[in-house]
Amino acid sequence: MPPGPSARIGIGDDSAVVNAPSGSVVAAVDMVIEGRHFLRSLSSGHDVGVKAAARNLADIAAMGAVPTALLAAVALPASLEAEWALDLASGLAAEAERAGAGVVGGDTASAESVIVTVTALGDLDGLAPVRRSGARPGEVVAVCGALGHSAAGYELLTSGDRSASPALAAAHLRPSPPYDAGPEAARLGATAMIDVSDGLLSDLGHIAAASGVAIDVERSAVLPGPEDPLSSLAGHGSFAGARILDWVLAGGEDHALAATFPPGTALPARWRVIGAVVPEGRGTVTVDGAAYPGPGGWQHFR
Amino acid sequence: MPPGPSARIGIGDDSAVVNAPSGSVVAAVDMVIEGRHFLRSLSSGHDVGVKAAARNLADIAAMGAVPTALLAAVALPASLEAEWALDLASGLAAEAERAGAGVVGGDTASAESVIVTVTALGDLDGLAPVRRSGARPGEVVAVCGALGHSAAGYELLTSGDRSASPALAAAHLRPSPPYDAGPEAARLGATAMIDVSDGLLSDLGHIAAASGVAIDVERSAVLPGPEDPLSSLAGHGSFAGARILDWVLAGGEDHALAATFPPGTALPARWRVIGAVVPEGRGTVTVDGAAYPGPGGWQHFR
Repeated sequence: MPPGPSARIGIGDDSAVVNAPSGSVVAAVDMVIEGRHFLRSLSSGHDVGVKAAARNLADIAAMGAVPTALLAAVALPASLEAEWALDLASGLAAEAERAGAGVVGGDTASAESVIVTVTALGDLDGLAPVRRSGARPGEVVAVCGALGHSAAGYELLTSGDRSASPALAAAHLRPSPPYDAGPEAARLGATAMIDVSDGLLSDLGHIAAASGVAIDVERSAVLPGPEDPLSSLAGHGSFAGARILDWVLAGGEDHALAATFPPGTALPARWRVIGAVVPEGRGTVTVDGAAYPGPGGWQHFR
Repeated sequence: MPPGPSARIGIGDDSAVVNAPSGSVVAAVDMVIEGRHFLRSLSSGHDVGVKAAARNLADIAAMGAVPTALLAAVALPASLEAEWALDLASGLAAEAERAGAGVVGGDTASAESVIVTVTALGDLDGLAPVRRSGARPGEVVAVCGALGHSAAGYELLTSGDRSASPALAAAHLRPSPPYDAGPEAARLGATAMIDVSDGLLSDLGHIAAASGVAIDVERSAVLPGPEDPLSSLAGHGSFAGARILDWVLAGGEDHALAATFPPGTALPARWRVIGAVVPEGRGTVTVDGAAYPGPGGWQHFR
């Protein structure tokens, strides 16, 4: 496993030692469980490794921090082929490297089904952490990264219609969070940030609740543009426009970053303004000023 | 859960932020699995929480570091009583606090059996990490903490003879590593260190192999003294002297700390000199100059 540029001591001793130049370490842990977060009939070992790493690395980026290292504890059925486990390790390593991090620790054991527990570490690079609680009325809400791709891909994969958009199917199997957008947002003065794991409305709800504000999302700003692979589905069989909006607003697991910025902040192009922080209705999220009638959050397999 | 004195941000945001004043963070991950590391018929939820925390916190101490925080990912059967899960959380919190740390992150999910994955973090307090690879011929080998208590306790518990020594049974259920002895050893100039998780001979073998040296253990120095609860077993039914030595040399899971020190190091009383680093026989561990004929390592339930 690649230790990455921040490891002083990687795998092989009692513990790893990882650089934390800011004098603090950012840390998050999350499990990826067979049957709940993935199905072995759809996901390769590599896919599961990428997903397990990405879920946690995105949590580091969502604080405005730079990922430095992963530790992975993997429980596998004794019947599983060794090739699958090696493929899992390669996925963890590949996504860690894509984030600029390494894999510095781990543990393995046997279990009834695959459970991959990843702890991700990061460094704030001298900046203050961006929490969920700093959003203020009058600020803009912006998103960097894909919305609804994972949910659409799941539907294509489970309906057997993967060929309708291989890009969306891949987005479900191997989410690709824009890690460097997290520290970028912190430097731009983001007042609150979260990664979109449960669904846009649900996760903006976490910011709204923690900040004691409300958020209004502009429907026209979240509809997929012509270059978005979701647009290619609009005229495809059963995939009507309303369902695409559901995926965008309620589909999770893309691990886009959603953040609030002071009004007038000059945002790079990849940060799309999708709404505003409003004072009325603490903890609520509306779409064009009204409650959204569709689903409010992505449901896991069970 | 108690965030502990080192947490800047605890549970509730995308990630935790933990102080790392030395500019690096020490990190270790380990799983505790039902049927392998504990049996629910013998261990309470609190016991399992203590054991899961202690295994990982001892890995931090074994680098010479001060524990700062835990993150815990807990998979539980849906049929488990809520009381058991709360008891587990109380055990994690209690052992974290005993080590001076807190609980700053977590995740929960359902699984066929109980799997507790803990990541422990620590700080080196400005000292260099104590690795396994620094032992040199002529140095002394010393141990701080119990040896063989967990193995003896396991045998008492599974034979139904817990009353022969409640203290040893408790040592198996709730190991009690001497965390502060890790930084103490680092300040005293320890050249190599490990926590005794697999068994004394096996773990000293890791130091010997990593350092390219051999270690000789003095039998008379590891035999339990009169105040050691193991001594009370010597005349008790089937527990003969030879088995007690097996427990001391090969029983694991006590998480004592074993370290090597330059000759002449003035060691505090709790560090017992038990042997020496010798040049001949790289990677081997002997007892009174000869291979030990008993078991070489503690075997898990399966």
